[in-house]
Amino acid sequence: MAKNRELVIAVHGGAGFKKAKKGQLDCIEEVIRTGISILRDGGSGLDAVEKMIILMEDSGLFNAGSGSHLQMDGAARMDASIMEGKDLMAGAVASVSGIANPIACARLIMDKSLHIMLAGEGARRFGAHYNLRELRSIDKEGLKAVKRSLDSGGDQARLYKSVYGCETVGAVAIDLEGNIAAGSSTGGFSPMLPGRVGDSPIIGGGTYADNRGCAVSMTGLGEKIIRCSVAKEISTFSELGDSVSIAAGKAIMRLLKRIDGRAGAITLNRDGEYCLIHSTDFMVGGFIKGKKMAVADQFKRVL
Amino acid sequence: MAKNRELVIAVHGGAGFKKAKKGQLDCIEEVIRTGISILRDGGSGLDAVEKMIILMEDSGLFNAGSGSHLQMDGAARMDASIMEGKDLMAGAVASVSGIANPIACARLIMDKSLHIMLAGEGARRFGAHYNLRELRSIDKEGLKAVKRSLDSGGDQARLYKSVYGCETVGAVAIDLEGNIAAGSSTGGFSPMLPGRVGDSPIIGGGTYADNRGCAVSMTGLGEKIIRCSVAKEISTFSELGDSVSIAAGKAIMRLLKRIDGRAGAITLNRDGEYCLIHSTDFMVGGFIKGKKMAVADQFKRVL
Repeated sequence: MAKNRELVIAVHGGAGFKKAKKGQLDCIEEVIRTGISILRDGGSGLDAVEKMIILMEDSGLFNAGSGSHLQMDGAARMDASIMEGKDLMAGAVASVSGIANPIACARLIMDKSLHIMLAGEGARRFGAHYNLRELRSIDKEGLKAVKRSLDSGGDQARLYKSVYGCETVGAVAIDLEGNIAAGSSTGGFSPMLPGRVGDSPIIGGGTYADNRGCAVSMTGLGEKIIRCSVAKEISTFSELGDSVSIAAGKAIMRLLKRIDGRAGAITLNRDGEYCLIHSTDFMVGGFIKGKKMAVADQFKRVL
Repeated sequence: MAKNRELVIAVHGGAGFKKAKKGQLDCIEEVIRTGISILRDGGSGLDAVEKMIILMEDSGLFNAGSGSHLQMDGAARMDASIMEGKDLMAGAVASVSGIANPIACARLIMDKSLHIMLAGEGARRFGAHYNLRELRSIDKEGLKAVKRSLDSGGDQARLYKSVYGCETVGAVAIDLEGNIAAGSSTGGFSPMLPGRVGDSPIIGGGTYADNRGCAVSMTGLGEKIIRCSVAKEISTFSELGDSVSIAAGKAIMRLLKRIDGRAGAITLNRDGEYCLIHSTDFMVGGFIKGKKMAVADQFKRVL
């Protein structure tokens, strides 16, 4: 174990067309401080990523966990995934209801089952079996958005644009062993059809981690990110020799030019090189590396 | 439109450790003949892929549609996805019940919604809205497998191995316009936890299509294929200059060496280069290119 290894964390709270909301940057700063103390105590990158995302899910400040948007039938169905880069182990939940911390359920699926992804009621029951805390709160803004959507007579395309970028959360970290990990969690966006699944639970779509490439968590419009498998693409470019910054920039530019998709990414490799980058106007996030730490709603901008 | 373009199709009916079962090769031959006639009539690669997979789902001979395995609670929950390579449009269903043709539901999600993936009950309701045929049949072998699993006292690891490779179906095609498409559909494997999702509905995992790279449908143990985002990796390698055969060989070898995963792939690019390749003992499949056509349960073997 390289005790002097420089610990690095990057976190995001969504990319889109709005500045950070009140409380979000303070929350991210606290989240990063919690994450780094886990790593300093010898915790794994996975542990840090999971705990940081749990804090964001519980904050109610982001579109994940207790802050999740509602689907058009008024229910919150959430997506999350987590992955580590040494053995490429991963866990994911898609369209799960009634669980406060989808990222914890994803971690349990990784640790306790032979599967990678569980969806819907099966995921909820799996989480309940391991006594995961239930989600009870209701997102009032989400209910309003659902109502607006229904009032609009189904002009999904217009509304789609209006909610583009939606406070998905994610984190990447490297631990004292030099292993990297990534995780993402989201409540989707309003309005969306019941059962809609975005990129956050898709290994290779919204989340990827490979010690030979890099750790990635994406945010933006999941429907576009999925079609380019952006997280995997960034890790592959990185494995083939690009810096994490070049790799992420290339993939995000490709997403934009090929299918007009805007997104944000946080990336981190085994050498501690990291990058926060977005093609949206804003991305809420932060990072820490040694004594260097920052939280902001704008980072490296593509285009 | 290049009227003289050589049409190509490749189809698989699963990779694993067993030879083709009675009827499977005849079915695949019929499927390929149907697919090629759709393409010759000017149908899109998407249309051909969808129709071919519907035929395999309906045959009851494969682990998809009416032949789907059952999950440990006795229910069939199916996964499927479809993608085209020109605009990277895609559709997917995860853990859907009660629909005879999950691939048709995936196509409808692609064509009729703003989403890429729907899961569970939301997917079923979406399919019902478009009057997709209901699935009513019960897989008796699946029920036996569930019973064996419960009788075994939960030794999932042993059973897992015994069912490794499981007759997932998939197809790739190129049409007269020179556009490629790919699709995959599966009933998972027995025994599996309720809500388990494999690689088949994961864009970049079990299915991918990009005219600049290639079309890919994977088969094998989904839990491993997901962790390497194999379909996307093959398309990326292909886009970066590898032949589809080299690209698929590299990705399948990487899956094997990195996480001991065995799988099969069918791939096809815009130039009509195709490849059927597997690291399992067998892969049931077939292809047609011009006058050259074959169905078999062994193709190019990696290792």
